[in-house]
Amino acid sequence: MSEVRRKKVKELLQMEAGADVLAKGWVRTKRGNKEIVFIALNDGSTVRSIQIVADKNADTEPVLSRITTGACIGVRGKLVASVGSGQAVEIRAQELTVYGECDPVRYPLQKKDTSFEYLRTVAHLRPRTNTFGAVLRLRSQMAFAIHAYFHSRGFVYLNTPLITASDAEGAGQMFQVTTLDLNNVPKNKKGLPDFSKDFFGKQTSLTVSGQLEGELGATALGEIYTFGPTFRAENSNTPRHLAEFWMIEPEMAFYDIRDNMDLAEDFIKSLVRYALEHSREDIQFLNDRYDDGLIARLESVVNTDFVRLPYTEGIRILQAARDAGHRFEYPVDWGTDLQSEHERYLVEEHFKKPVILTDYPKDIKAFYMKQNEDGKTVRAMDVLFPKIGEIIGGSEREADLQKLEARVDELGMSRKNLEWYIDTRRFGSCPHSGFGLGFERLLLFITGMQNIRDVIPFPRTPKNAEF
Amino acid sequence: MSEVRRKKVKELLQMEAGADVLAKGWVRTKRGNKEIVFIALNDGSTVRSIQIVADKNADTEPVLSRITTGACIGVRGKLVASVGSGQAVEIRAQELTVYGECDPVRYPLQKKDTSFEYLRTVAHLRPRTNTFGAVLRLRSQMAFAIHAYFHSRGFVYLNTPLITASDAEGAGQMFQVTTLDLNNVPKNKKGLPDFSKDFFGKQTSLTVSGQLEGELGATALGEIYTFGPTFRAENSNTPRHLAEFWMIEPEMAFYDIRDNMDLAEDFIKSLVRYALEHSREDIQFLNDRYDDGLIARLESVVNTDFVRLPYTEGIRILQAARDAGHRFEYPVDWGTDLQSEHERYLVEEHFKKPVILTDYPKDIKAFYMKQNEDGKTVRAMDVLFPKIGEIIGGSEREADLQKLEARVDELGMSRKNLEWYIDTRRFGSCPHSGFGLGFERLLLFITGMQNIRDVIPFPRTPKNAEF
Repeated sequence: MSEVRRKKVKELLQMEAGADVLAKGWVRTKRGNKEIVFIALNDGSTVRSIQIVADKNADTEPVLSRITTGACIGVRGKLVASVGSGQAVEIRAQELTVYGECDPVRYPLQKKDTSFEYLRTVAHLRPRTNTFGAVLRLRSQMAFAIHAYFHSRGFVYLNTPLITASDAEGAGQMFQVTTLDLNNVPKNKKGLPDFSKDFFGKQTSLTVSGQLEGELGATALGEIYTFGPTFRAENSNTPRHLAEFWMIEPEMAFYDIRDNMDLAEDFIKSLVRYALEHSREDIQFLNDRYDDGLIARLESVVNTDFVRLPYTEGIRILQAARDAGHRFEYPVDWGTDLQSEHERYLVEEHFKKPVILTDYPKDIKAFYMKQNEDGKTVRAMDVLFPKIGEIIGGSEREADLQKLEARVDELGMSRKNLEWYIDTRRFGSCPHSGFGLGFERLLLFITGMQNIRDVIPFPRTPKNAEF
Repeated sequence: MSEVRRKKVKELLQMEAGADVLAKGWVRTKRGNKEIVFIALNDGSTVRSIQIVADKNADTEPVLSRITTGACIGVRGKLVASVGSGQAVEIRAQELTVYGECDPVRYPLQKKDTSFEYLRTVAHLRPRTNTFGAVLRLRSQMAFAIHAYFHSRGFVYLNTPLITASDAEGAGQMFQVTTLDLNNVPKNKKGLPDFSKDFFGKQTSLTVSGQLEGELGATALGEIYTFGPTFRAENSNTPRHLAEFWMIEPEMAFYDIRDNMDLAEDFIKSLVRYALEHSREDIQFLNDRYDDGLIARLESVVNTDFVRLPYTEGIRILQAARDAGHRFEYPVDWGTDLQSEHERYLVEEHFKKPVILTDYPKDIKAFYMKQNEDGKTVRAMDVLFPKIGEIIGGSEREADLQKLEARVDELGMSRKNLEWYIDTRRFGSCPHSGFGLGFERLLLFITGMQNIRDVIPFPRTPKNAEF
């Protein structure tokens, strides 16, 4: 029997009874009586465990006594039809091996506290729970679905830099990156930190977006996307903010805002469809355990046309609702950014489906967005989702050199620091568009989890960089 | 004809003559005579350009005069059989649109200087060259091949953190991440920087490896891989070093070193095979332009079994070569790390094929590697490649709690900082292995490029963080 190769639990659960098998994994539970022991064994390949049945006798007692919740074991045995409910097959153990014991007194994953708050304090072990196993498998599946989506359409995956000397979106929210001795920062003649002595010879930070570099790629390679970590040194301790998170930013030459909306809608529907098709078991688990509206919500997104609505129309709808007696905490005025309550009203109450809001006032949007002819709005587009709010933000980009430079000046930004970016408009400028999707925002929607710290393996938040 | 949808150049070149088409892209070259103009149009979808043929007359002259190298244009016309060599079809232009002109005097991508050194200074535009288009498409293809390889085998893609408070591999080489005011660093009572006031409440840096967190994933989910940016604040100005680069780090529960070697060899062969099958055109271009041994080198790797050799045997071979008169610059002594010249001798001269060197002296390898019974060596494995040297480094990991703790103590490392990592050996410890592949090292091999700064879009090196 020694030539039997180990099979993963996921495979074993799909096999017919009868085979000699070898399984390895971690003990989720162990129970039994004087004669027989039942072990639920999980190896991370699926949310389901396989049941191991072992006889209890003088021969097996020494090894069985070492097997407790959390222990790592190997089992040789025969796959047999299971009489228990919830599984077709189980393993009748013939040989048990303990790879690693697990002290039940000290093991942090005990039944006593399984709150998400507690599990965050043992984030190094929480992937061993059913919930975080499911979430992390879903995260992996979604990442693959994203790469497969763009790859099949000929997009080039572009790795934009993490360390950057540009501060296009405001340095205040950025993490500094330095090799200067913080204990004794060298100063220049003006008494300021002497960044010429720093590793890169200038002040550098962690990127807040790969978009500007993404546009360099799109205006050469046609269609690109980024998918990598981004950073915000924002002191926000909320269930929606991370200091380190992952972003997907496609950028496409020759796309106008309509092409951009078509892509965004198709993209996100494809991802949700992929999750429903390829990760049904994990989604079902999360649906049944935490959020019985999850699957219905996912299916509704796949099967509906998103509303496309100019911001100005959205404001009118909100004002009409207010005038008809709906209470909003924040005022609804043209020219101000929508609050979460406004977005949710449009999506969850008025339209009851995802909404793509377009043509925002230029003063609340970034300098690179294409200016409309009205002189007041830009070709922005935000995709608003039920429960999540803004899940995608994008725009057609300003392709006109003069307009772009004027906007940079108007906002008091440094043209000099942006020369490399402005070059794309100077040399063979091209109409183009793009958008950004926060990966963890997507995962909140796909998993139904409530806190963004629970959809990334090791969350970084104010005062927390453990593990 | 207005309903004709734009097609990419790659598609157009594969079509039959006869169709009405619309192409958009950037002008690579323009030439002609008094009656006719030939434009080579490229849109980044392929290394090849499509030829546009336009009549020169009073009607077309105003638009043709605006079309120069680098300009962005759209062409409506008919796809016709080409009489020229090197292409089956070309576009007979009926309507030309200029999206963006390109001042030929100021455009940085002129024929006059196309050296790689020069192109690095205009890295924001170099993706518009044939060479960097090919390299960046290959980079994207390889990234997809990596994800597809692991995904098809059930590995979970795990995003390990970039910002870390652990310094397992030595803080001296790490970039500090901080929001402290460098102009006025707050001090604690001891007069040292007061990191309790920093964003994370402690000293943090950019990760040099996701491996330790990867092991947390593997000992819960079974098989995982990371693929993300890593950082070294090493002041090395060489063609082989980047301060920011991308790493792939698979980590697998229940794999011993032999399984690990099997995976590494199969993995890298699959990637090379994928490149040959899916990116033949770009590889052929690089082969023909720069390195006519490239394709032969790639094919030889796919079609050969890698040598597997203990370090001690390798030393014997090198010493025998030395004794027989081969001149090495560095001494060949058991216990010292191999130099590039030694690795290349084994790979390129002695075996003439890739070599997996195993069982290195423990003193030159990391603390987490599984100790062999001889007390002197560890179950390390380095994959050595022609021209590149070490392309993969890995090992079976030490699964024994006591041995791991003893080694941590022996090396004077802080057990306290590693408690979370050591917990994997404390609770259900499991035999496991893993390795790391530097993505840019792989790309040097696949593309035949000589300098690592030319296989990443925006290289970060000492004194350089442009764009």
